[in-house]
Amino acid sequence: MNRPVVLLTDFGGRDHFAGVMKGVILGRDPRARVLDLSHDVPPQDVEAAAFILKAGVPYFPQGSLFVVVVDPGVGSGRGIIWARSKRHSFLAPDNGVLSWIAEDEPFLEIRSVSERRLWLSPVSPTFHGRDIFAPVAGRLSRGLSPARLGPKTSKIVKLPFPRVERGPGGVLGRVIAVDCFGNAVTNLKPRHVGTRSVFFKGRTLGTVRTHYAAARPRAALALYGSSGFLELSVRGGSFSERFKGRAGDKVLCR
Amino acid sequence: MNRPVVLLTDFGGRDHFAGVMKGVILGRDPRARVLDLSHDVPPQDVEAAAFILKAGVPYFPQGSLFVVVVDPGVGSGRGIIWARSKRHSFLAPDNGVLSWIAEDEPFLEIRSVSERRLWLSPVSPTFHGRDIFAPVAGRLSRGLSPARLGPKTSKIVKLPFPRVERGPGGVLGRVIAVDCFGNAVTNLKPRHVGTRSVFFKGRTLGTVRTHYAAARPRAALALYGSSGFLELSVRGGSFSERFKGRAGDKVLCR
Amino acid sequence: MNRPVVLLTDFGGRDHFAGVMKGVILGRDPRARVLDLSHDVPPQDVEAAAFILKAGVPYFPQGSLFVVVVDPGVGSGRGIIWARSKRHSFLAPDNGVLSWIAEDEPFLEIRSVSERRLWLSPVSPTFHGRDIFAPVAGRLSRGLSPARLGPKTSKIVKLPFPRVERGPGGVLGRVIAVDCFGNAVTNLKPRHVGTRSVFFKGRTLGTVRTHYAAARPRAALALYGSSGFLELSVRGGSFSERFKGRAGDKVLCR
Repeated sequence: MNRPVVLLTDFGGRDHFAGVMKGVILGRDPRARVLDLSHDVPPQDVEAAAFILKAGVPYFPQGSLFVVVVDPGVGSGRGIIWARSKRHSFLAPDNGVLSWIAEDEPFLEIRSVSERRLWLSPVSPTFHGRDIFAPVAGRLSRGLSPARLGPKTSKIVKLPFPRVERGPGGVLGRVIAVDCFGNAVTNLKPRHVGTRSVFFKGRTLGTVRTHYAAARPRAALALYGSSGFLELSVRGGSFSERFKGRAGDKVLCR
Repeated sequence: MNRPVVLLTDFGGRDHFAGVMKGVILGRDPRARVLDLSHDVPPQDVEAAAFILKAGVPYFPQGSLFVVVVDPGVGSGRGIIWARSKRHSFLAPDNGVLSWIAEDEPFLEIRSVSERRLWLSPVSPTFHGRDIFAPVAGRLSRGLSPARLGPKTSKIVKLPFPRVERGPGGVLGRVIAVDCFGNAVTNLKPRHVGTRSVFFKGRTLGTVRTHYAAARPRAALALYGSSGFLELSVRGGSFSERFKGRAGDKVLCR
Repeated sequence: MNRPVVLLTDFGGRDHFAGVMKGVILGRDPRARVLDLSHDVPPQDVEAAAFILKAGVPYFPQGSLFVVVVDPGVGSGRGIIWARSKRHSFLAPDNGVLSWIAEDEPFLEIRSVSERRLWLSPVSPTFHGRDIFAPVAGRLSRGLSPARLGPKTSKIVKLPFPRVERGPGGVLGRVIAVDCFGNAVTNLKPRHVGTRSVFFKGRTLGTVRTHYAAARPRAALALYGSSGFLELSVRGGSFSERFKGRAGDKVLCR
């Protein structure tokens, strides 16, 4: 079987956009194995896509190709890159969306995707997913050498993963993503938090629990989520709704 | 081709959760054939998932494996079971979600899923879909003997299918599910209703129609839906919105 | 590999409807290659589906079969047709949904789908997707001759693509679709618009831009979208929300 081609976009499910990408890929490689990681990334939210890659990529088989089209700069001069880590490869706009996964799986090779003969023609200024990403992904799935995509590069846009700050007042983290259940995922790992209490907007969530049922129904709590980071939750409810929590908000541990 | 592995979850389409399950399954069985039944079951709504299984499973090919992750008890002490009927097999939390399909396709064998060597390690307390269900499904898809999953069991949680009551006032049924168009599916079959009139919250819907067009536009009506049960509908509208109908509500036929 | 079977419905993703169609198809052809074009067409919106076909079909490989279930007339006397162009084939209710793609890919053969032995039995009056479309699609995917579906026909329902009108006041077009980002797609091509200015509900959008970034943030603009038609957009916003634009609205160029 061919290696998976995994799509991550903000195209939504209503229109033809995601389906058409699959059509173009299959036209290039009739045996392609196309999977959806998500098509419902919040529109143009590069950091949300960066988090989904960080949380999801490690669980896909060796050799999977991730095609990321969350691309506020489509039609402007931004570049497109292909990159390869030890286990996976990636096709994405050069807007930093690969930065967070690259911290976990360092890139061994990066290329600028510039060989226009591999693209559809003409290229629409608004739908590079169909006209550039999909035909290139289909050719790669069929076995094209990445050297054919364009020249090697090392200058790519970087989006730094938010750092944890330590000071006299305690440890200061950030919300990095909010999932569809309203859980606020932070950048805090067990080594940052230890036995400290967790505070959000001045309110305490107590110390870290081991599972939801350790809190009273409807109570707010903090626990380590499935991505390994501290998450802020409401048992049987939505943390982000009740506390107006969103990416960038501060989380204090002391 | 491998037999289908069919996913039913409440993970939604926005995050990486459903996609990651597929990545883990393909890592165990590169030839796995993964299908989506739905990932938009209302969060933690075990009865809604039980209905989708009852309505959907019979239409899948012999040998399909259904992987159900609608699991309010994740991380608590609830068990996980594998079960086999004459035509299909199932992997689900032991919370009753398989009860309704088991009434139609009696289980010939049930096992407690307890062999930890088949799971990812460590197991997150919040994402057994990724860490237990997916790797076990992948191994089963590749041909693992179910005997390897854990010991046989017969004590599983049962969620009774709502019974129809008959009394002097008529036949009393229940709404068991509401679909995305707002149709209210009941537990009533033709043998219960006969030529009686149907009442909901004191209002009459008349006798059973054969198709939507038999009612005036915007009128409420009752007809037998595609799952074989009586459904309450509004022609060109939403019954559940107009009548505030939801699972558990009474339906009277007299 | 088998040729793609591409589904386009208004079933939504929450219920079992779309998944069950795949189960039935795989039961008829275990090697079927089923793809989703969309299941979130606005309910019963035949023109929205006609546009998605017009925009999407050309990008799918030769031999793909499109199965369209956007079917307000289900259960009434409306027919079902199979049609073949030079590159693709189609299975759809005879309600005009294929008219717009047929203008681009003329049909070489049309058949009335009437051979009941290919259908499930009994046929539900509300779910022909499962009981007629899916089993027929599965048999076609496996290689059934279309001649077996039913007799040839030429009398099918036509839904005319909205014509552009030219008059002394300028060129008058129409909005034909609104995508999930709120862009209003019109029936206007570059040859209609030329260097004219674009007006919507009395307000000017200026002349056609080449890309979004040519407008100020939050400004309205007109540009040629990925389907080749003039689209009305708001940079970083939703045109349809701000201007209450929807299918059928007039667009003036002068």
